[in-house]
Amino acid sequence: MPMFIDTSPPGQCIFCRLVAGEIPSARVAEDDLALAFMDLGQVNPGHVLVASKRHAATLFDLTPEEAGAVMRMAQRVALAARTAFDPDGLMLLQANGAVAGQTVGHFHIHVVPRHDGDGIDYTWPRKEPGPAALEAYAQRLRAAL
Amino acid sequence: MPMFIDTSPPGQCIFCRLVAGEIPSARVAEDDLALAFMDLGQVNPGHVLVASKRHAATLFDLTPEEAGAVMRMAQRVALAARTAFDPDGLMLLQANGAVAGQTVGHFHIHVVPRHDGDGIDYTWPRKEPGPAALEAYAQRLRAAL
Ligand SMILES: [Zn+2]
Ligand SMILES: [Zn+2]
Repeated sequence: MPMFIDTSPPGQCIFCRLVAGEIPSARVAEDDLALAFMDLGQVNPGHVLVASKRHAATLFDLTPEEAGAVMRMAQRVALAARTAFDPDGLMLLQANGAVAGQTVGHFHIHVVPRHDGDGIDYTWPRKEPGPAALEAYAQRLRAAL
Repeated sequence: MPMFIDTSPPGQCIFCRLVAGEIPSARVAEDDLALAFMDLGQVNPGHVLVASKRHAATLFDLTPEEAGAVMRMAQRVALAARTAFDPDGLMLLQANGAVAGQTVGHFHIHVVPRHDGDGIDYTWPRKEPGPAALEAYAQRLRAAL
């Protein structure tokens, strides 16, 4: 799976340097496993990234403990964003691989407040393959768990 | 925040009925707090929803324990999808509110294998407001944590 864009070694990628304080950032929250800071791009005001503190390239590389910790922090940040920015909605987006839009090869979740007419949109080509195909896909996944 | 589409009472929404086995689904994994099953729409083969078992309308309504549990399950499913479907990448999407694309008012995460040319795309209007604005936003969020 050709997943990576930033192939910096662990500890030298931009988010590792940000976690270490070698690169400035607008920090929102921090615990032992996760760090939340403002995304430079701010697709909407209040757009935050929640990253693993440890260098893990993708979701596949997190420990289960880290996976839980980043989501609990994303929820805390989402609740704060609801209070602070009063959005119409909110989305989480987490991309793994260039094809999915990942541009920094260190795990992060986007926490994005949403507003009517904010210009964020996605194409979502539903296929509806029917129950037999769904069950065949589920069997393949269960066999791989 | 006008967040909801499906305003069914807890226990009567489509995902509550699915969790209870009153509606059939192609199940992938289950634990005390979370259930993973195939999305009917399958934007790509292997597209799974991970829902809280308890009725919680959005991310805002999960307990921290549930937030951790759904993400750990999403990671397990993602790892299985990598093995079973060999995608070029994978994304998680979690929508809260109609404006964010939520169509069932019961918390769920989309786990979506991604492939080159799969037709999924999103508009992501970066603003880059600069360090002073970022720090002001971060302060508003920290004050609301
Ligand atoms: Zn790193
Ligand atoms: Zn429900």
